[in-house]
Amino acid sequence: MFAERFEKKETIDLRKRYIGPSCKIFFSHDPIKIVRAKGQYMYDEKGQRYLDCINNVAHVGHCHPDVVKAGAQQMELLNTNSRFLHDNLVLYAQRLQATLPDKLGVCYFVNSGSEANDLALRLARQYTGHTDIITLENAYHGHVSSLIDISPYKFHQLSDAEQNQFVHVASSPDVYRGKYRADHPDPATAYADEVKDIISKAHKKGGKIAAFIAESLQSCGGQVIPPVGYFQQVAQHVRKAGGIFIADEVQVGFGRVGSHFWAFQLQGEDFVPDIVTMGKPIGNGHPMSCVVTTKEVAEAFMTSGMEYFNTFGGNPVSCAIGLAVLDVIEKEDLQGNALRVGQYLTSLLEKQKEKHLLIGDIRGRGLFVGVELVRDRLKITPATAEAQEVIYRLKEQHILLSADGPHRNVLKFKPPMCFTTEDAELVVEKIDVILTDGKYLLSFIKGNKDLLSGSGLV
Amino acid sequence: MFAERFEKKETIDLRKRYIGPSCKIFFSHDPIKIVRAKGQYMYDEKGQRYLDCINNVAHVGHCHPDVVKAGAQQMELLNTNSRFLHDNLVLYAQRLQATLPDKLGVCYFVNSGSEANDLALRLARQYTGHTDIITLENAYHGHVSSLIDISPYKFHQLSDAEQNQFVHVASSPDVYRGKYRADHPDPATAYADEVKDIISKAHKKGGKIAAFIAESLQSCGGQVIPPVGYFQQVAQHVRKAGGIFIADEVQVGFGRVGSHFWAFQLQGEDFVPDIVTMGKPIGNGHPMSCVVTTKEVAEAFMTSGMEYFNTFGGNPVSCAIGLAVLDVIEKEDLQGNALRVGQYLTSLLEKQKEKHLLIGDIRGRGLFVGVELVRDRLKITPATAEAQEVIYRLKEQHILLSADGPHRNVLKFKPPMCFTTEDAELVVEKIDVILTDGKYLLSFIKGNKDLLSGSGLV
Repeated sequence: MFAERFEKKETIDLRKRYIGPSCKIFFSHDPIKIVRAKGQYMYDEKGQRYLDCINNVAHVGHCHPDVVKAGAQQMELLNTNSRFLHDNLVLYAQRLQATLPDKLGVCYFVNSGSEANDLALRLARQYTGHTDIITLENAYHGHVSSLIDISPYKFHQLSDAEQNQFVHVASSPDVYRGKYRADHPDPATAYADEVKDIISKAHKKGGKIAAFIAESLQSCGGQVIPPVGYFQQVAQHVRKAGGIFIADEVQVGFGRVGSHFWAFQLQGEDFVPDIVTMGKPIGNGHPMSCVVTTKEVAEAFMTSGMEYFNTFGGNPVSCAIGLAVLDVIEKEDLQGNALRVGQYLTSLLEKQKEKHLLIGDIRGRGLFVGVELVRDRLKITPATAEAQEVIYRLKEQHILLSADGPHRNVLKFKPPMCFTTEDAELVVEKIDVILTDGKYLLSFIKGNKDLLSGSGLV
Repeated sequence: MFAERFEKKETIDLRKRYIGPSCKIFFSHDPIKIVRAKGQYMYDEKGQRYLDCINNVAHVGHCHPDVVKAGAQQMELLNTNSRFLHDNLVLYAQRLQATLPDKLGVCYFVNSGSEANDLALRLARQYTGHTDIITLENAYHGHVSSLIDISPYKFHQLSDAEQNQFVHVASSPDVYRGKYRADHPDPATAYADEVKDIISKAHKKGGKIAAFIAESLQSCGGQVIPPVGYFQQVAQHVRKAGGIFIADEVQVGFGRVGSHFWAFQLQGEDFVPDIVTMGKPIGNGHPMSCVVTTKEVAEAFMTSGMEYFNTFGGNPVSCAIGLAVLDVIEKEDLQGNALRVGQYLTSLLEKQKEKHLLIGDIRGRGLFVGVELVRDRLKITPATAEAQEVIYRLKEQHILLSADGPHRNVLKFKPPMCFTTEDAELVVEKIDVILTDGKYLLSFIKGNKDLLSGSGLV
């Protein structure tokens, strides 16, 4: 609307005055004002270009013309609710369903990942008649009340008394920093057995499991990739207890993992969740999302007699935008691009790991990549301050990256899917320069005396 | 995107196959397929025009060109999250705040009325340190778990065991059908005293009141207009108990009531809620909404240490659309139009009431009008079937109206704000014809023998 209406300082002042202070800003010491964006680039008010490695919402690239056109054309024609018949709704549901296993055949359209995960809980509880939820350590599933309850990433800030007694937290299946690591003979079974134990303990207290919920790959939790076979075994334990499996694809769905369209498919063809929730990338920034489930779950929800109406969910504009996003992913082979560029990015980062001891772990699938920084590779001491410094130094170089995980020491790549090999080379080259800087070597040396003393370097 | 891709029958079949059966459709026996809309008119796939008396979401008129243009232009330029500085966010917050009392100065942008009301509960609980919520009979505040808990319109379908023990239901301040009626000397005080009693009872059980929440005018609850002074007294009782007042303007805000921009202002200048939630009309169909509160509440929420991040909330496209909606309301004097056309509509309906005994009550403010149908004016027996018949017969005449309230006997007008006096005349004329039909007279006679026997008519 306005390229720039206020000077940056005034924008900051107005924001302080009118916007809730709980809504944080990136780089709070010196925030960025972005006025336009295209593809994998964002531009500030002075025309400075930033390479965007973090905005997974702008999935097919910022302001993709096909998506903008689809949205604008439908806005001109009709935008109304789903109590009227409209072809966009059914066409989009059909197209979306075709990307999923047949069993997942019924859609509910909502406005955000939070609305999707909340509805998933309602569906699970209605279908099973149970209440308890098993969630993962460090999980984040959304900002509405019911999801804060199942998001340890958020509720660890609450007192025990404020935590809900029907929520059970299982260890994050993190084979780098978790309870069972890469050197364990079978971490998938070990982590799944813990879920089995949680179920037994809940049963002893009279609890009944409605669902296990997990992001197919944990994002805020630190870019965690669960070992293959974990979800299958968890699903078996949970279903045996009368519960169901909810795969949260809000951050990681729509081809980002490269080899598959949905991240849960990384576990193998023998795994199908009972509910899949979607969000962020689905509308390339347009507020929309979806819950897909089985016929059985949908029918159980209906028999409650309670209508489900979502004012904006599934409106013709949202569906037109959703369709355009699916078209672009296909037309531009963005899933293939995620696989190729993701692999290349990971290989470049692996070389950095050989060079910089601060890099403890590289893990990723497609364009969902984590780089865990540690001060000591044996003790895996989180290099939190260093990660923040890298992020700030990259920003000075006009590259946007973020750090997350419980220790905020995991550099988190989740760029628009049009990210190129050249972009990958640029960001890795800049990281190399930053890590080569003596400061990091110094902090590393401090933390790694044991390791280095054996190497003759110190 | 596609004017019509499938034949109507196929659209219905695909909908049955792919869309959750809890998502109901209007006129389920013979649903309408709408392909385009403009102003107060919607058009089906055959080009048939319908006069829209129900879509309050299309507030400034379906597909208003100024709103479409603002959205399309901003979509082309930038659509990203509020962790980056952007002028649209602060400009919109400033403009929105200017419509509210000064005390309500801090905004949180979210995606739907449900997200807004859920956040309002989180804010209230954090600020007060209390948990209990007082809600009104027949209230509907949204579809997420926390709001089903406080929506008797929904949860009356649940068993007692499923109802939350921290939720207290006060009588709807309905002076037509409620506990205290128009003939009561002071219904405002009587209804408010009930809230006072609820608080005392909750205290005796160890409960502590976080908030009283009410729509400024109950919509799904049956177009209920609370007596002036009720909110002031309730607020006094609730604040004395350490709780706050949440005014839900999701259905009724943005000038619809004609005399004021916000429906809570109908109570008088001496009433200011602690939180106002917005929704439906705010983006003319675009998924967006807002929570506005006081500095004190916002600061208490921040001191929890928990960041509030909403992926889509307050993005530049939503804010551009929100700004355009405010501009159109002002430029086209839609609030003034709502006042004038609303008064005219109400006066026409009053004449119908004199003519048709089936009409028990006419109540409204601006373009928010309810017509309660009863089989017996003394017993106020709800004329539920008759209301449904009127709706269906109007549909045959290409007029869209709905019926709501606990007995589904209240005809509910909430048209786009560009509704004209001619539109009002047309719909009232059609209602007159339908009610004049012998069938209604017959059902009326059956139910009103007592009344008529004294009049000499039977």
